[in-house]
Amino acid sequence: MMGSSIPRQLSLNALEPIVIDLLDLQQELTPSFVPVRSLPTPLEFMRQVHTNFPVIYRGAALNWPALSDRRWSKQYLLDTLKDTIVTVAETPFGNADAPLDGTFVQPHTSQLPFPVFVNNLLDQNADSVCYMQSQNNNMPTEFPQLVDDVQMDISWATEALNSKPEAVNLWIGSSRSTTSLHKDPYENLHVQILGQKVFKLVSPAEHICVKESMLKKATYQKSSAGFNLIAEGERQPWPTVDPDEIDSSDQWQSRVRVLEVTLNPGDMLYLPALWYHKVSQVSDTEGLCCSVNYWYDMDFTGPLWPFANFVRGVTNLLTGDEHNDNIADSGRS
Amino acid sequence: MMGSSIPRQLSLNALEPIVIDLLDLQQELTPSFVPVRSLPTPLEFMRQVHTNFPVIYRGAALNWPALSDRRWSKQYLLDTLKDTIVTVAETPFGNADAPLDGTFVQPHTSQLPFPVFVNNLLDQNADSVCYMQSQNNNMPTEFPQLVDDVQMDISWATEALNSKPEAVNLWIGSSRSTTSLHKDPYENLHVQILGQKVFKLVSPAEHICVKESMLKKATYQKSSAGFNLIAEGERQPWPTVDPDEIDSSDQWQSRVRVLEVTLNPGDMLYLPALWYHKVSQVSDTEGLCCSVNYWYDMDFTGPLWPFANFVRGVTNLLTGDEHNDNIADSGRS
Ligand SMILES: O=C(O)CCC(=O)C(=O)O
Ligand SMILES: O=C(O)CCC(=O)C(=O)O
Repeated sequence: MMGSSIPRQLSLNALEPIVIDLLDLQQELTPSFVPVRSLPTPLEFMRQVHTNFPVIYRGAALNWPALSDRRWSKQYLLDTLKDTIVTVAETPFGNADAPLDGTFVQPHTSQLPFPVFVNNLLDQNADSVCYMQSQNNNMPTEFPQLVDDVQMDISWATEALNSKPEAVNLWIGSSRSTTSLHKDPYENLHVQILGQKVFKLVSPAEHICVKESMLKKATYQKSSAGFNLIAEGERQPWPTVDPDEIDSSDQWQSRVRVLEVTLNPGDMLYLPALWYHKVSQVSDTEGLCCSVNYWYDMDFTGPLWPFANFVRGVTNLLTGDEHNDNIADSGRS
Repeated sequence: MMGSSIPRQLSLNALEPIVIDLLDLQQELTPSFVPVRSLPTPLEFMRQVHTNFPVIYRGAALNWPALSDRRWSKQYLLDTLKDTIVTVAETPFGNADAPLDGTFVQPHTSQLPFPVFVNNLLDQNADSVCYMQSQNNNMPTEFPQLVDDVQMDISWATEALNSKPEAVNLWIGSSRSTTSLHKDPYENLHVQILGQKVFKLVSPAEHICVKESMLKKATYQKSSAGFNLIAEGERQPWPTVDPDEIDSSDQWQSRVRVLEVTLNPGDMLYLPALWYHKVSQVSDTEGLCCSVNYWYDMDFTGPLWPFANFVRGVTNLLTGDEHNDNIADSGRS
């Protein structure tokens, strides 16, 4: 009882060695690269989920119809989706859901006929960068024509986790778009179909290194005059460190260990729940970068969720700004 | 850089709500009782290990020879082990490896012929309480005659975790011995054979509620004059809260959620890695309490180990005594 009534002062310096121990321990006990493994059995995958460490399955999808007979191409997608209206994120610099000068910017979204979207995507001089990244289980809902070319779940993951994916998302973009560092509360399998994606990965234990801040939210509005940022009332917690521009003079950024993975067509990445990821794209020779990902619910009843929240809460005390108090976490950030 | 050179002061009060959130979240997201489940497949067990929550498998060992034909009894053990020398822990109050007035006391150990040990165990007026609790993989090394009566591994756990148990331990005690609250860095399967055991369980997230302290170590020495405590130079981190004597006026103890499990003959408990457990015994009609447990290595490369260490380090800042600085953790405590 006394401990709580006397306002004992604790120097922040007392917390620092404990945080440094966490970073050291996590980095000592895990590999400094993402291992390549053959396709797992459900049990093997469950062990990998338990370990909460990324894994690459090279060529895992090479026998899917989209890839096995080189079915997917610009022409095939244009033919198949010629009458489809798609939800497209538009930004001036390919920066959807990203920190920009201390603001969290969300894209302008529009509904475009698929051929118009592709035209814009391939036009290097277009006044906006397009990315089809709706992340709302768009595969079955918006693209039923394409479902048979890929898979609607990953059988060994469905068996391991004892449930179907919560969302299956189709992503179509180009080298011009980048997804900024963030985390998702999902066990994620990301499958490359056309072009390449480059993932920069940071473990949940390294939360302090990514300098999460409560950013003011704003949304791009596109008009004939170009893009305007419309401020919103809310704030959004978001990592503000760019793993491609680490400030090595910063005591916490300098301790981060960024793992890098390049996915080629047919490769699959297991991206464990709550890992931070930044995703860059490399277009194929036709100008496209296309992937499908499977979001499986994470186990919220296990220790990962409360422990990662605790790490976040404690380490935000050390690095957070004044808006970081009482962060309400929606999971994605 | 500035953050580390200016000695910013943080009131301990700023940490408290973050710790309370951790306790609340863990308790909200998990059941308030230990679920009873049927015997798992390897995949089902791996999911349970991932969830890091205890499970009871009632009657799991009823078909083991030790139980199926009621083979194990006082007479059977005396006959089978009549020439066996066993390692026995002796204490005045049945308090081996336990906190006592701010000291961590270890038992006097002696090598006794098995019949002498049993005599002492059953003698309510003996001047010491005996417990065979050597925890050093004693089943195959000291009791090869008994191995065929039980199992040397639990097949679905071995398959799930992809390794044999690190240790298989036989425990023979009586109602007079209690094992004080502690944790082990193992995935543990504990199987009751004779009598009952009562487990009081506390999750690793609730570290702050068990008030770990760096206790001075001492070892009982038994002579004709009785027991003496011989101090040792070292200290040992150990929980000082007794889950059967919670001080509800203490702000952290009052928040603990103690789960209780009673194992009857044939029952098996899955006790997940790093869970605190206190174990009491109820002798059978012949005066014996006997169980076998299987310690499987935990996954040190996953997030549980570094995260639980972090929770421990941070929360010891709030409740720890002056000796808690720089605790070096051996895992067991
Ligand atoms: O591919 C991208 O641009 C982002 C992918 C992503 O964030 C995910 O798979 O969760
Ligand atoms: O049965 C006992 O007395 C203690 C058991 C224990 O600590 C364990 O199974 O790890």
